[in-house]
Amino acid sequence: MSVATALHTLSVLVENKSGVLSRIAGLFARRGYNIHSLAVAPTEDDRFSRITILVDVDEAMVDQVIKQLDKLINVIDIVDFPAGASVERELLLATVEAAPEVRGQIIDLVGIFDGRVLNVGQDRVTVSLDGHPTKLDDFEDLLRPYGIVMIQRTGRVALPKLDRSPPTALRSVEAG
Amino acid sequence: MSVATALHTLSVLVENKSGVLSRIAGLFARRGYNIHSLAVAPTEDDRFSRITILVDVDEAMVDQVIKQLDKLINVIDIVDFPAGASVERELLLATVEAAPEVRGQIIDLVGIFDGRVLNVGQDRVTVSLDGHPTKLDDFEDLLRPYGIVMIQRTGRVALPKLDRSPPTALRSVEAG
Repeated sequence: MSVATALHTLSVLVENKSGVLSRIAGLFARRGYNIHSLAVAPTEDDRFSRITILVDVDEAMVDQVIKQLDKLINVIDIVDFPAGASVERELLLATVEAAPEVRGQIIDLVGIFDGRVLNVGQDRVTVSLDGHPTKLDDFEDLLRPYGIVMIQRTGRVALPKLDRSPPTALRSVEAG
Repeated sequence: MSVATALHTLSVLVENKSGVLSRIAGLFARRGYNIHSLAVAPTEDDRFSRITILVDVDEAMVDQVIKQLDKLINVIDIVDFPAGASVERELLLATVEAAPEVRGQIIDLVGIFDGRVLNVGQDRVTVSLDGHPTKLDDFEDLLRPYGIVMIQRTGRVALPKLDRSPPTALRSVEAG
């Protein structure tokens, strides 16, 4: 089929109740939607968690996915971040083969990408990088020739881009 | 009940098949295990994904959870990272109220924690911080008085700490 699919980041606010994740994952599995990455994490309010789902669906289906999610119990709110309207970030941890004679090369790469060296062993290093997922892909490609022992990525999280239009009125904000 | 529970980070390697996440989430829901955070992300091999689950269970139950996970189809490998034996990291994105007169205070906090300013609006900023989850908690506490508009955390990912014992033999590693 030649239907165009696109990656959509859905941010789903859910109640912290048993079975919510199971129902959401079940919905995606039954409908055959392809989850690219998914992150569940606590929010600023203990009663809720936020599930960020990166899903690859054809454009016509996005509204339907959102409607189906909205029908699930314990789902409070769903935000769809179309490409370009959000700030998207992901975190990568990787342990790489790094004998002393090549360690400097890997540390240079970490510096260029503005990542961190987390742990150094006799002949391996563990490094981290946060950034846009495509930047993480590039970093991973450059590490691969050294030998990636183990890699973990969090899946992406997203927040809406901020409004830069002038404020309608000046406001005062209390600093705590 | 006075059974001691502890946070365990389980790293589960799964085949990229439809329904895997649903089965894992269903197992945790049915058994009433409390998932604190969960991250699903691609691995270096397209056939597999890695699911990192932070679960709060009593110590005696950990082995049972692992056995039950191991029985699920499409589950390839499970690693349990006990506290102290792994490098754990998480990523936080937050949009905070930041009128021009308090913006500097927030940027100072970002600098102290070695985070990043991702986006600046008229009276809000979006910032990111990667680090140990407890460091993210502290950062969140310090941002809260300014007014957190929206926050996203990825859930933690973990890699084993590296061996620092001397190598038994010198090895040569090819740099790509």
